[in-house]
Amino acid sequence: MAPVKKSILDRLNAGEVVIGDGGFVFALEKRGYVKAGPWTPEAAVTHPEAVRQLHREFLRAGSNVMQTFTFYASDDKLENRGQNLKITGAKINEAACDLAREVANEGDAMVAGGVCQTPSYLSCKSEADVKAIFKKQLDVFIKKNVDFLIAEYFEHVEEAVWAVEVLKTSGKPVAASMCIGPEGDMHGVSPGDCAVRLVNAGAQIVGVNCHFDPMTCVKAVEMMKVGVEKAGLKAHYMAQPLAYHTPDCSCQGFIDLPEFPFALEPRILTRWDMHEYAREAYKVGIRFIGGCCGYEAYHIRAIAEELAPERGIVAPGSEKHGMWGAGLEMHTKPWVRARARRDYWENLAPASGRPKCPSMSTPEGWGVTKGHADLLQHKEATNTSDSRCGLIWFMT
Amino acid sequence: MAPVKKSILDRLNAGEVVIGDGGFVFALEKRGYVKAGPWTPEAAVTHPEAVRQLHREFLRAGSNVMQTFTFYASDDKLENRGQNLKITGAKINEAACDLAREVANEGDAMVAGGVCQTPSYLSCKSEADVKAIFKKQLDVFIKKNVDFLIAEYFEHVEEAVWAVEVLKTSGKPVAASMCIGPEGDMHGVSPGDCAVRLVNAGAQIVGVNCHFDPMTCVKAVEMMKVGVEKAGLKAHYMAQPLAYHTPDCSCQGFIDLPEFPFALEPRILTRWDMHEYAREAYKVGIRFIGGCCGYEAYHIRAIAEELAPERGIVAPGSEKHGMWGAGLEMHTKPWVRARARRDYWENLAPASGRPKCPSMSTPEGWGVTKGHADLLQHKEATNTSDSRCGLIWFMT
Amino acid sequence: MAPVKKSILDRLNAGEVVIGDGGFVFALEKRGYVKAGPWTPEAAVTHPEAVRQLHREFLRAGSNVMQTFTFYASDDKLENRGQNLKITGAKINEAACDLAREVANEGDAMVAGGVCQTPSYLSCKSEADVKAIFKKQLDVFIKKNVDFLIAEYFEHVEEAVWAVEVLKTSGKPVAASMCIGPEGDMHGVSPGDCAVRLVNAGAQIVGVNCHFDPMTCVKAVEMMKVGVEKAGLKAHYMAQPLAYHTPDCSCQGFIDLPEFPFALEPRILTRWDMHEYAREAYKVGIRFIGGCCGYEAYHIRAIAEELAPERGIVAPGSEKHGMWGAGLEMHTKPWVRARARRDYWENLAPASGRPKCPSMSTPEGWGVTKGHADLLQHKEATNTSDSRCGLIWFMT
Amino acid sequence: MAPVKKSILDRLNAGEVVIGDGGFVFALEKRGYVKAGPWTPEAAVTHPEAVRQLHREFLRAGSNVMQTFTFYASDDKLENRGQNLKITGAKINEAACDLAREVANEGDAMVAGGVCQTPSYLSCKSEADVKAIFKKQLDVFIKKNVDFLIAEYFEHVEEAVWAVEVLKTSGKPVAASMCIGPEGDMHGVSPGDCAVRLVNAGAQIVGVNCHFDPMTCVKAVEMMKVGVEKAGLKAHYMAQPLAYHTPDCSCQGFIDLPEFPFALEPRILTRWDMHEYAREAYKVGIRFIGGCCGYEAYHIRAIAEELAPERGIVAPGSEKHGMWGAGLEMHTKPWVRARARRDYWENLAPASGRPKCPSMSTPEGWGVTKGHADLLQHKEATNTSDSRCGLIWFMT
Repeated sequence: MAPVKKSILDRLNAGEVVIGDGGFVFALEKRGYVKAGPWTPEAAVTHPEAVRQLHREFLRAGSNVMQTFTFYASDDKLENRGQNLKITGAKINEAACDLAREVANEGDAMVAGGVCQTPSYLSCKSEADVKAIFKKQLDVFIKKNVDFLIAEYFEHVEEAVWAVEVLKTSGKPVAASMCIGPEGDMHGVSPGDCAVRLVNAGAQIVGVNCHFDPMTCVKAVEMMKVGVEKAGLKAHYMAQPLAYHTPDCSCQGFIDLPEFPFALEPRILTRWDMHEYAREAYKVGIRFIGGCCGYEAYHIRAIAEELAPERGIVAPGSEKHGMWGAGLEMHTKPWVRARARRDYWENLAPASGRPKCPSMSTPEGWGVTKGHADLLQHKEATNTSDSRCGLIWFMT
Repeated sequence: MAPVKKSILDRLNAGEVVIGDGGFVFALEKRGYVKAGPWTPEAAVTHPEAVRQLHREFLRAGSNVMQTFTFYASDDKLENRGQNLKITGAKINEAACDLAREVANEGDAMVAGGVCQTPSYLSCKSEADVKAIFKKQLDVFIKKNVDFLIAEYFEHVEEAVWAVEVLKTSGKPVAASMCIGPEGDMHGVSPGDCAVRLVNAGAQIVGVNCHFDPMTCVKAVEMMKVGVEKAGLKAHYMAQPLAYHTPDCSCQGFIDLPEFPFALEPRILTRWDMHEYAREAYKVGIRFIGGCCGYEAYHIRAIAEELAPERGIVAPGSEKHGMWGAGLEMHTKPWVRARARRDYWENLAPASGRPKCPSMSTPEGWGVTKGHADLLQHKEATNTSDSRCGLIWFMT
Repeated sequence: MAPVKKSILDRLNAGEVVIGDGGFVFALEKRGYVKAGPWTPEAAVTHPEAVRQLHREFLRAGSNVMQTFTFYASDDKLENRGQNLKITGAKINEAACDLAREVANEGDAMVAGGVCQTPSYLSCKSEADVKAIFKKQLDVFIKKNVDFLIAEYFEHVEEAVWAVEVLKTSGKPVAASMCIGPEGDMHGVSPGDCAVRLVNAGAQIVGVNCHFDPMTCVKAVEMMKVGVEKAGLKAHYMAQPLAYHTPDCSCQGFIDLPEFPFALEPRILTRWDMHEYAREAYKVGIRFIGGCCGYEAYHIRAIAEELAPERGIVAPGSEKHGMWGAGLEMHTKPWVRARARRDYWENLAPASGRPKCPSMSTPEGWGVTKGHADLLQHKEATNTSDSRCGLIWFMT
Repeated sequence: MAPVKKSILDRLNAGEVVIGDGGFVFALEKRGYVKAGPWTPEAAVTHPEAVRQLHREFLRAGSNVMQTFTFYASDDKLENRGQNLKITGAKINEAACDLAREVANEGDAMVAGGVCQTPSYLSCKSEADVKAIFKKQLDVFIKKNVDFLIAEYFEHVEEAVWAVEVLKTSGKPVAASMCIGPEGDMHGVSPGDCAVRLVNAGAQIVGVNCHFDPMTCVKAVEMMKVGVEKAGLKAHYMAQPLAYHTPDCSCQGFIDLPEFPFALEPRILTRWDMHEYAREAYKVGIRFIGGCCGYEAYHIRAIAEELAPERGIVAPGSEKHGMWGAGLEMHTKPWVRARARRDYWENLAPASGRPKCPSMSTPEGWGVTKGHADLLQHKEATNTSDSRCGLIWFMT
């Protein structure tokens, strides 16, 4: 039996900072348990020890949220991307809930059941069909009694709203997070308007995740906050960005960068970049602060360490980390010892070691030369009754 | 009971390629179990599940060698760097052997007991004292019956020779690996001469690990091979380099780069860089091919995949990896699908996403402006009876 | 006697493209005749042969406009910046007119008398005082009978309007060019609004010069055009940008870059960048296309060569230039010969040869962290009766 | 009548520093008077005012040597590269001598007649034929009574020696300068050995010019000096490098860089780089310090300013230059004023403004993957009686 814990809303209402976890599919791809391309989470069933260990690393780093490893675990996606899997969606979702709960109980963490965008939506299935997909995952989350729900990684606010509407039926707190930047969703709906719709649909927490780097995400969430407040509404805010620098992204984020997904290494954020992100997110009023693709435990630990003064909490994993490089104080070389200070790492502009590589890329696809406006024009041109169908030509 | 396996020498004598594992201290630092600075491996005792999981990832990726997580686990280092540890060196070494053996038995892998350079050597302790340090670790390796031994991460050939001499007393195969580049050891002994001394001391396998990027290491090992062959001797060759690009290193490698150890991210090698390394290492005759700091499972998997045609072995982890991006073939965006081919990834020059950062740094310390020659001059000037003492001024 | 030439307005009204000249102060600084800092043009008197030669190079490259070398040649600036000069402003302006006319008569070029922003304006002198300054220069231009007038390099639209009002009294065609980017003038007036005010003041040609790179300037002029057309007005458009890449500029342009003015070399545009600029400028409807700081004759030649098909004119200087590298066709090395083609140069991403340098800088001054908005706030806070005075604190 | 001046040897023997001039063909290409590809100097006849002006800029910047603009002005080259020229080689050489003399007489400068490598040599003409080519240019130099002679831009020491032998017959001082780096000439003759041969042939001054950046050239000349001194000989030393950063060159220098010759802009050295070069050249004992392709007057001025304390001479052009940015002391913005100091410019790592470009290139041609050794092997394989012929396949 786990001790009774404060709910996510209790925490946020009390003004606490909730630390999210990091990205599972990218981390487990590197460890050998997720296949890039399908990105499906069958490892929850086939290699539970690997998933459990990753949960533990995030917990140890300071995460208060164990998100179930259920990304792309809707039945339509599993069929689409992993036809040969002989494991049902229900089994994956259940196993993922068990793993998240097991580790959450080892520390101060809640379990969040997660759903994300579906191929059904993009192939113009009906609202009822799409909602049925979410409902199936939700049934597991209710059965396994997760603490709250996250609808995340939505490029289309309409689908995100549908997801929130389904999740709300559970009575559990609902967070809604879109994978958009300051330019808004794939139909050109601004971050502010997206947030208003999500709050109106019942989400108590809104924000963005994935697709863009931390500072871009913080900016998008700030726009959400302005929109929500302008509409006279109230919400909590969350950010779970990439751990990759993406100053050169177009509106669909890192997917369109030529380096996605197998050559993103030079873009990986350092722990010091994370301090900056955590501080900036805190400043604009985001209180659920975590990460997505690219985040490893040490990134989450850096967030927790940056906000330790505000939170009064030191994560267990910090026993193995000297703040701002303090672990180097004993180094035999004086010039390495001299790195054991905050301003050294804050001011360092780290070299890539790749003199034949540029520092920015040109995003591929329609995003590059044509941009968002053209997409929308195309959408209108091809759109008859369903606003999603304008995107089909591009997306499938 | 594990099945009877071929020994490392049987394999190498038969012309097989042996895939090493990756780096433990850096990977576990990021996961929260090793402290940067001390870099000591007490997690073998305190968090065995984390160490076991990392072994498993490497095994799954294709490693044939489970190196005991005993880096810096000599008593003098543990005292020096981790005074508050209430765990004895013997306990750490034993636990590390058990974990390595447990996972090795799950697949086609051998256990290698590892020792590395000691503070005793650098503080001018006697040959007997230094050898006693190695002997204590060796006693555990013998008790736990490891399959072979590796003396690695030596900057001074003299100390490496002493280590080999101790390890040889066990009757087990001995590999000796120095952390040097083409400029040779800290006393200016060339890679070729280092290798000859190590072979003469009884090492059957010689090579380099850590401190430099793969291509630099391959070059250094090639120089070792030339030296050994010129001397009319015979050996097998190994390389376990960094997974960081370090074209800007001076003679002591990545330690002196301003980014060490907390801002090396932009330098991390991609899986495609690993293909190049594996091919090049194979071409020059290296047959024990692994990695050191920065290596994660997917880097090792890339080595195994590059050499799969020669080896006729596909690692279990490759079930979750499409060669050369094949996993993208189903992507909904045509421009992402177009990345599912070898020449795309081979020709990509990945951007850093950091337009305010350079591509090379200036190494710090005496290495920069003065270089190796000055170090040696200084050494001679201050040297009276012990060749190590000239370095003390610099190293302590 | 010069042959009778078509006026600038005849040309532009007929849809012709008029090629401007390049930058004098930067080119002559490198040649040793202008001092960086004061940037005053006394060389028109002291070293006429150097100024004449630079005019000739631009003429030969295809320029149709010989701008008098009268930048910063207003009396208040000359006093302020070059107190020791024993040459009067009138003398400099006269000599500059003579040199421009002499060379213009050697080819198909008009003489344009130029005025620019004054220290009098920034130190809050009255409209009458500031206009008197412009009037003194105009008197020389009328006496020397220049073909048209350019009010350029204004950061404040108010002062630019005053300049146009003075120049209009001559009855000669007037072009007005501000050194602003898409963010507008120093008081936050948008490019479109600036243009409308200038056209209403009587300018027949409006545009931007200096401070930003070509593509940024083209964008700003496009915004001017949209503004003018929205207002139901009519104008011709000009651009005379920097020959430096400045993607990292804040609102006051390259002055705030750390490299200004003595380390801008790595940013210099190639001739191929100029082709792109000329084409883009032409596409958005700019018909007076020239350059400012950093432009040398070969940059102007590239503009002329790009637009040669539209203009049906080949500049004399093109006799010494093979289009798209054609001059390399005879090279003895096959790989150099292979560079004699358009797509080679269009696709080349030229290396900086500086691995320890970044590709972008952080602009200095208030522009960096605070931005334009803060400046305006500050302006308002300190402003009582004169909108210029809010800037004094920053500018003096 | 010019005043009687000290000869180049008087100056160098007295320990004076002689400042050379900069590059003519590149500067005049940009100004519109030289065609890239042929690079021939007919402008000495067709546009004397442009050539005279460039000489004057260098003189004003501090040059003590006016090199005749006779690069590639040998009859065989002019025929080969500029068949349509109706101007004889003799006329060009004569005009160039007159221009150099005219400007030299305006200040403290000597006239140096220059010859360089010939197509005759590379097409395996006989020693007598090649020498006859040099003799024709020398005849003009004798007739015009130049002050000394420079045999420069030789890739093959054999041809350089032949040139020196011809020039020596005049009785005038002879300087010999090869366009090689530390790897030596195209036949693998080391800089030291090249220098010894040239001194033995009668050159009183030896060094290198063109093809590599300043620091590489200084290193090559230092190797020459070591070679000459080891041989018990005596000489003066000169360097006239590129004004481009070329850390990525292979053995034939900047010709093989993909950016040559139309996209070298990002590599252009700043004036501050020149200070470093001048100081370093001085330190290793080079006393004839100038420049080649890419050098403009302000680069030469920076050399003169760096060595002003040693020389006790301030160049006329320095009246228009504040040392280390002093001209910015009056700037209205405090952060620009703050740039008026030495350490600011010495420590600045200037950004390229090109985030999509790398910092290094891969040289093209055989130099890249195969390198010098292969060239030599090829040479040997195809060589029968003439050491030049092995290169023909590559060079023609």
